[in-house]
Amino acid sequence: MGMRTAVYPGSFDPVTNGHFDIIERAASMFDQLVTSVVVNPSKHCRFDVEERVQMLREVTAHLGNVRVDSFRGLTVDYCRTEKFAVVVRGLRTVSDFQTELQMAQMNYRLAGVDTAFLITNPQYGYSSSLVREIALMGGDVSSLVPPAALHRIQPLPDS
Amino acid sequence: MGMRTAVYPGSFDPVTNGHFDIIERAASMFDQLVTSVVVNPSKHCRFDVEERVQMLREVTAHLGNVRVDSFRGLTVDYCRTEKFAVVVRGLRTVSDFQTELQMAQMNYRLAGVDTAFLITNPQYGYSSSLVREIALMGGDVSSLVPPAALHRIQPLPDS
Amino acid sequence: MGMRTAVYPGSFDPVTNGHFDIIERAASMFDQLVTSVVVNPSKHCRFDVEERVQMLREVTAHLGNVRVDSFRGLTVDYCRTEKFAVVVRGLRTVSDFQTELQMAQMNYRLAGVDTAFLITNPQYGYSSSLVREIALMGGDVSSLVPPAALHRIQPLPDS
Amino acid sequence: MGMRTAVYPGSFDPVTNGHFDIIERAASMFDQLVTSVVVNPSKHCRFDVEERVQMLREVTAHLGNVRVDSFRGLTVDYCRTEKFAVVVRGLRTVSDFQTELQMAQMNYRLAGVDTAFLITNPQYGYSSSLVREIALMGGDVSSLVPPAALHRIQPLPDS
Amino acid sequence: MGMRTAVYPGSFDPVTNGHFDIIERAASMFDQLVTSVVVNPSKHCRFDVEERVQMLREVTAHLGNVRVDSFRGLTVDYCRTEKFAVVVRGLRTVSDFQTELQMAQMNYRLAGVDTAFLITNPQYGYSSSLVREIALMGGDVSSLVPPAALHRIQPLPDS
Amino acid sequence: MGMRTAVYPGSFDPVTNGHFDIIERAASMFDQLVTSVVVNPSKHCRFDVEERVQMLREVTAHLGNVRVDSFRGLTVDYCRTEKFAVVVRGLRTVSDFQTELQMAQMNYRLAGVDTAFLITNPQYGYSSSLVREIALMGGDVSSLVPPAALHRIQPLPDS
Repeated sequence: MGMRTAVYPGSFDPVTNGHFDIIERAASMFDQLVTSVVVNPSKHCRFDVEERVQMLREVTAHLGNVRVDSFRGLTVDYCRTEKFAVVVRGLRTVSDFQTELQMAQMNYRLAGVDTAFLITNPQYGYSSSLVREIALMGGDVSSLVPPAALHRIQPLPDS
Repeated sequence: MGMRTAVYPGSFDPVTNGHFDIIERAASMFDQLVTSVVVNPSKHCRFDVEERVQMLREVTAHLGNVRVDSFRGLTVDYCRTEKFAVVVRGLRTVSDFQTELQMAQMNYRLAGVDTAFLITNPQYGYSSSLVREIALMGGDVSSLVPPAALHRIQPLPDS
Repeated sequence: MGMRTAVYPGSFDPVTNGHFDIIERAASMFDQLVTSVVVNPSKHCRFDVEERVQMLREVTAHLGNVRVDSFRGLTVDYCRTEKFAVVVRGLRTVSDFQTELQMAQMNYRLAGVDTAFLITNPQYGYSSSLVREIALMGGDVSSLVPPAALHRIQPLPDS
Repeated sequence: MGMRTAVYPGSFDPVTNGHFDIIERAASMFDQLVTSVVVNPSKHCRFDVEERVQMLREVTAHLGNVRVDSFRGLTVDYCRTEKFAVVVRGLRTVSDFQTELQMAQMNYRLAGVDTAFLITNPQYGYSSSLVREIALMGGDVSSLVPPAALHRIQPLPDS
Repeated sequence: MGMRTAVYPGSFDPVTNGHFDIIERAASMFDQLVTSVVVNPSKHCRFDVEERVQMLREVTAHLGNVRVDSFRGLTVDYCRTEKFAVVVRGLRTVSDFQTELQMAQMNYRLAGVDTAFLITNPQYGYSSSLVREIALMGGDVSSLVPPAALHRIQPLPDS
Repeated sequence: MGMRTAVYPGSFDPVTNGHFDIIERAASMFDQLVTSVVVNPSKHCRFDVEERVQMLREVTAHLGNVRVDSFRGLTVDYCRTEKFAVVVRGLRTVSDFQTELQMAQMNYRLAGVDTAFLITNPQYGYSSSLVREIALMGGDVSSLVPPAALHRIQPLPDS
């Protein structure tokens, strides 16, 4: 049997310490991991696709079996084209669970694409949107995102 | 990097079509899969450990990278001894999610043992205990369990 | 099309004001309603089947299209034998929802027996088991159960 | 006692196989069923009211006791004006349950209008909005909606 | 030990009978209570900040240890500046619970600000947004909000 | 207004680091806190009442405004007799939430006794029963319970 590649799709707007934890754990679970930014033109994002890809590259540079990518369209179509064996997703809360369950069942039904869920570790139970909101209101997010995201979301004051 | 072995622990009292679905999907996701009966002396089971192991063997005979085992004690200790890379569990409902989340976080905390969850396909959203209850009351469970379990839980009438 | 009969099965151990509310509402929704005590020999009950049937008879005496019954075995088999069109159940909480969803899907799958759920009104969001526990510890349950249940669970002191 | 009419209100944007399943089951449960498009001017819809009514008419043409309608304003006011005995709603997930519970309790409180919930069969656990999203991204929704919706959401390519 | 001041932050758009119930109960639980309107420029509100503060003042005029305020920015920063001992929040549903849990854990983590949750009494299980929606569609909300909010959301018809 | 005393009732079988966290936080929120062991004769406990009281005394010795007690019967009766202003409870998960919500609403309804819920910090999201189970199977619980509980549940080996 050949190498198995898993894909971890997401908005990563921005990548958080919670995403990074899932990436590290998934990278140790599968032969190859592709962390991939979902390009959704109808959703307004704080960072553009190139910035999000770049943040992920900086964050995963030390992980030999992780590659960063981006894609448009349905995750199932992307998986079929790229021959990914499995989708990886993090689960934080029951609300996550409901939405993710619907998506995972649909992906399996439409294209036989399966999903493996990792439970977010309790200290990372916050979303990118909460991080953006805290940063927007002037709060300190240095304990919530990796440095690659921090200097982009909270620029250093002029010296 | 060497082969990765995942373990799918459970009571399997008896194995259901839902368990079988998880086994097939996990077997295609990881290099090796060990399906393992948890021996819990304080829990009364309908089938003894040997019967449950035997049912799993019959059900997985055609899957080349699946092995059947059983163990006593904590899952984390079993994983450390056997050097399993990851625990596989099926998630059916929000109630499952709560219990499983607590266990998965504890296993990761106590021993760095990680868990990958697969969503049970919707047609398999029933538990072994519901199967036992239906069979006990004389209901027909032939569409709920594989033949290896059916002939043990619902013996053929004398001819 | 002929008359449609709905069945409201339950333990009714004892009947509460919440059950009574569901009975009245279901009785106005369907042509006939059968309120039926599920006889489950493996479950220890505070009141025996005859007492529970009798309590329901007293409570529903004024409702012309309600009949009280009891049955053993699976609800689906009872529904097929009696030709009931639909099962009625009350939903109080999300936990209820999970269990009831599993049962309703199973009943539909095994025998095409469908379930209509009524949401328990918020002031009745307590279970029979909570009522029993409060009564056991000497609490006052007079606002939680109808008189037919009250004088059985909380006998008048000797005068 | 006279005929009882139930109403199944919804956006039906578009009608899905899941809606159709609820319609068929509710039609067999009540004397008459009105499937009614809720006109909500503050919500942007993919199909206009007339199209949604027309899709429902095509889908329910074979059901003798089902009628299609549309209404503006509160469901409770519509029910009082039309003298409907009960509102029918489908429940898919726990998230549905929370929202629906709040609405059902409010309708009962404001106007004594009661709701009967049917559990969506597991193979139909997807929403209209997921169907629209898949169609928008070029996915195949032919197994998710009836033909009356399919040819409107996914026009045949020019020949 | 000195006086303890709790803060009850919210949108109060408008204040409902459910909010009022939480205010009365929290006021009897803590030495002082500040009910404070969160000013969120990115969220469109039906009432402006001054109106919402004024409604709260009218509603709490009889409560000696309650003060009304408003603030911009993060709740944690406001709590640190004002030296509030604890944040008070009402919990209605499981969906509330998920969101509130994430916020409470974040506030504790970022600044050691703790939250005490009161369970909304069952008759008040509706949100401000449901009240606005009912009023917008011409429904009667007189049993859902205090007079101070009612005459603002549902002006008397011209005489 | 006089001093307010809150009560934190529970089984504490044994006290965990999660309980201790709630005790410390509640002690800083209210004037006085009574941590009280609920004596439930119908529930089998690993530790008897005296041991559980003693563990709590050791754990709270350094907290000047915390007292340890035990009681039989209903929490509401205990609160009325002792004139406690409020019950404190920790919330870990959605499942907790459902059960606790039912109890809190009942206590308020039966006797006007109110409950303040604190969210368990994420690193303490495990129950006493999980601790007992891990200890029973020979696992290491030293990071889960305070020393006062540890030496009782996991005696030192003979030297």
